[in-house]
Amino acid sequence: MLKTGRGAEAPPFLVMDVIAAANAREAALPPGAPGVLRMEVGQPSTGAPRAAVEAAMRALSAGAPMGYTEAFGLRSLRERIARHYEEKYAVTVAPNRVAVTVGASGAFPLAFLAAFDPGDRVAMAAPFYPPYANILTALGMVPQLLPCDASTRFQPSIAMLEALDPRPDGLIVASPCNPAGTMLSAGELGAIARWCHENGVRLISDEIYHGLSYGMEETTAAALSDSAVVINSFSKYFSMTGWRIGWMVLPEDLIRPVECLAQNMFISAPHVAQVAAEAAFGGVEELEANKAAYARNRDRLLAGLPAAGFDRLAAADGAFYLWADIGHLTNDSVAFAARMLAEAGIAATPGVDFDPARGGRFLRFSYCGAEAAMAEAPARLYSWLRR
Amino acid sequence: MLKTGRGAEAPPFLVMDVIAAANAREAALPPGAPGVLRMEVGQPSTGAPRAAVEAAMRALSAGAPMGYTEAFGLRSLRERIARHYEEKYAVTVAPNRVAVTVGASGAFPLAFLAAFDPGDRVAMAAPFYPPYANILTALGMVPQLLPCDASTRFQPSIAMLEALDPRPDGLIVASPCNPAGTMLSAGELGAIARWCHENGVRLISDEIYHGLSYGMEETTAAALSDSAVVINSFSKYFSMTGWRIGWMVLPEDLIRPVECLAQNMFISAPHVAQVAAEAAFGGVEELEANKAAYARNRDRLLAGLPAAGFDRLAAADGAFYLWADIGHLTNDSVAFAARMLAEAGIAATPGVDFDPARGGRFLRFSYCGAEAAMAEAPARLYSWLRR
Repeated sequence: MLKTGRGAEAPPFLVMDVIAAANAREAALPPGAPGVLRMEVGQPSTGAPRAAVEAAMRALSAGAPMGYTEAFGLRSLRERIARHYEEKYAVTVAPNRVAVTVGASGAFPLAFLAAFDPGDRVAMAAPFYPPYANILTALGMVPQLLPCDASTRFQPSIAMLEALDPRPDGLIVASPCNPAGTMLSAGELGAIARWCHENGVRLISDEIYHGLSYGMEETTAAALSDSAVVINSFSKYFSMTGWRIGWMVLPEDLIRPVECLAQNMFISAPHVAQVAAEAAFGGVEELEANKAAYARNRDRLLAGLPAAGFDRLAAADGAFYLWADIGHLTNDSVAFAARMLAEAGIAATPGVDFDPARGGRFLRFSYCGAEAAMAEAPARLYSWLRR
Repeated sequence: MLKTGRGAEAPPFLVMDVIAAANAREAALPPGAPGVLRMEVGQPSTGAPRAAVEAAMRALSAGAPMGYTEAFGLRSLRERIARHYEEKYAVTVAPNRVAVTVGASGAFPLAFLAAFDPGDRVAMAAPFYPPYANILTALGMVPQLLPCDASTRFQPSIAMLEALDPRPDGLIVASPCNPAGTMLSAGELGAIARWCHENGVRLISDEIYHGLSYGMEETTAAALSDSAVVINSFSKYFSMTGWRIGWMVLPEDLIRPVECLAQNMFISAPHVAQVAAEAAFGGVEELEANKAAYARNRDRLLAGLPAAGFDRLAAADGAFYLWADIGHLTNDSVAFAARMLAEAGIAATPGVDFDPARGGRFLRFSYCGAEAAMAEAPARLYSWLRR
């Protein structure tokens, strides 16, 4: 038996196992049985906007060879993304600071390797997006969890950062965040960005859920800090998960290091996805309709879940998740979710990999799925919990 | 100024800078001037086979949502790849050992993190594909170079491995290899695979140039070892570089570790590229025509380059590269290549990042470009060197 590396101990990203279980359950259903309501997936059920798909098809049917692009992507896409910052946030971002990546996933190892060394501590709110910690750990870095709750909308605060001893080397924030769906106000994010810059802490702002908020204003760290790394993606608002296309806005000192890492580790992001992504900015009408559907789903669940017995929900500011405290129902969210799938036919994600310490009493409901499913879910849950 | 990580010292993958210089030169040419002959690029000038492009377009026009796939890829693609091993090598590979990746590039960090720890030594022939060493170094691992020359066809030998003290933790081989284009015989690869397995050394066999050999037989490490990791890609023989789609054949002990790492670091490979890749197996006629063009290019250069003054070429067994010893012309391949681009209008890659110690007297010519360019190159080089 040959040795394996420390990376071989990486835990799974549990939601992918939950998806597989829901698929298996669906496949095993007898004909005519009510289907599984899919509230576990973190991806839109919609595809890319028509403008994006058509641009891809045009390029393919014109016989474009679709070779490697430069490591940071097509110049025209980088310029279009830079313009997006002007249009959406009224902040000027030079196109040479924009790096097109293989999804947000592809951006994390680049950012972590460029900014941190093995042994470095990187702080983040708990609950958190599990790959943050799993990628850091695989790279020999140390996730430093900040236990958060409803009192700070499940977001980190300056007080929590000040209390850290020793100081972290980095901080990851996400607003809106996954799994809690909560946001930082512009003032809070600004204060955190200033604190990080002044204390030599590299801020990594995961803005993948920007575009999906339901009242609160979104702020980009690119407007607040000259040292922060901004990570974003076409997967969520732009509804292009499987295209694997995202981007970073880099601080000046990390541009060339990240470019060298990207040349070696990725060569480039998928070419056809870059063409599609550039055109996706022209699909706003369709994307806003998707968002309106999420908003209706959110309203349905915020109205229906409490009555069904899930009444401890984090402030649902953005993204498409509800983070439910189910501590009055169970201490074992994995078993609870498995029973819910088997008995009520509803798939949701147990909280354990979002928050190792407290996730046993939390469940993440995703509401980016079909509207009919979201409309049906509260009643099914009500009946199931009453059994 | 905030700190940066050790990864921030990753050297560039130099060929990407050479490509940029050639692009700039081409853009600056006056109208009517003879064009730049592109012999620096490591990618086919052809696109994906028609069958692949058409499958992608069919899926897109049918409105398939193109979401994430499972981390290891579409089941049908994994099964098709497994069948490829049966058809091409007469070796049985279970589909669950096949992991679809974001190009071969995406496979390297997964393999390295699953198999090795920071500080581990991973041996490889020099010259070598620069990202091997650059990715290992970014991950805190240590490349251990085996200086090779024409006496072993620029490939490692058991004698070189035996001489290593301490023993390495891993070995990367590639046959055909980049940049030398040389191959290991089936017997040599078999002996290396056995030696690795018996000595607890994880063999990583980069088979990305399989399908592109001009006489010698290709052997997969999957037929020779139960502990080796095989890495391959649709980029070269299948002519799909920018689609970013590759695969691994994993030994049993690394299946689940690599799956967990992939869930966290990639989520999945690009969906539309997976659909196209599966169909690419049906494009063999076109792919064999591409290969025949490479063979003609190879013949032209093997006939013309020696007469032009480049007469010390590595055995051109496969891939689409010629590795030229230019020690009789220069000790500074970077300056030489820059002059050749400026004065002769021919772009080739200096050897320095393929072989830090000896690359100053080597040049890599790629012959996957246009046939007209390859036909013209020897005469241009002849005139230039005579000036």
